[in-house]
Amino acid sequence: MDRFMELAMAEAEKGLAEGGIPIGSVLVCDGKVLGSGRNQRVQQGSAIRHGEMDALENAGRHSADVYARSTLYTTLSPCAMCSGAILLYGIPRVVIGENKTFQGEEDLLRSRGVELEVLNDPSCIDMMEGFIREKPELWNEDIGV
Amino acid sequence: MDRFMELAMAEAEKGLAEGGIPIGSVLVCDGKVLGSGRNQRVQQGSAIRHGEMDALENAGRHSADVYARSTLYTTLSPCAMCSGAILLYGIPRVVIGENKTFQGEEDLLRSRGVELEVLNDPSCIDMMEGFIREKPELWNEDIGV
Repeated sequence: MDRFMELAMAEAEKGLAEGGIPIGSVLVCDGKVLGSGRNQRVQQGSAIRHGEMDALENAGRHSADVYARSTLYTTLSPCAMCSGAILLYGIPRVVIGENKTFQGEEDLLRSRGVELEVLNDPSCIDMMEGFIREKPELWNEDIGV
Repeated sequence: MDRFMELAMAEAEKGLAEGGIPIGSVLVCDGKVLGSGRNQRVQQGSAIRHGEMDALENAGRHSADVYARSTLYTTLSPCAMCSGAILLYGIPRVVIGENKTFQGEEDLLRSRGVELEVLNDPSCIDMMEGFIREKPELWNEDIGV
């Protein structure tokens, strides 16, 4: 597994150990990590800190030229909110751990020129499958269904 | 002006007084305010707390049936990130103070069945025009350009 996806996966595992939703993300620019994060719905009672959003927030404020050179790694296909953040900041590339347990707005992202790489990594799939089986209500809350 | 838009405008004015970006938002369900907020880029160094996102965060965690009965008020047309959050949570109606100084993802929202009401209120327009004139770089950072 790519080392940045490994970092995203480590964030997801940390989230699971905290009793949270196991989705992690890392924002990388010029080969360096700008910020990493994980879903904070349980830990912070957050409605907006999905993994990708938490990584963007932890990365801090940046100008458009930084985002334009960045790649966002996420263990799960990005939902509408996180996809919207990717479009807002013009992040040109997203590496997705898996899209088997949930498929976000991949078509929208592609239609706007974002390059997506979907790994469908078995360890990412296993973690989400296990979580969704154990806590379906929490998962539904997180994806607004 | 609608009383909920007045609350959103009051949030925006508070943000301006704090040296921030003057965009405010209120989430309303069954005639009651669930949460209100304002852009926190300057105040909290936040990359994700646009006005609408701050209102959603301050409203706390809710199940889909609550969002399905809600209306989001925002002083400015919602960007891709905030529009994505509206879609994620299935908020069916958005009241927009103005879309003259910035037009967000209104077409996308409408194509997904979200009802939009655009007021183009002169006081909302004046506030954003004044802000953009004074701090164009901060504004560009906020909308990723």
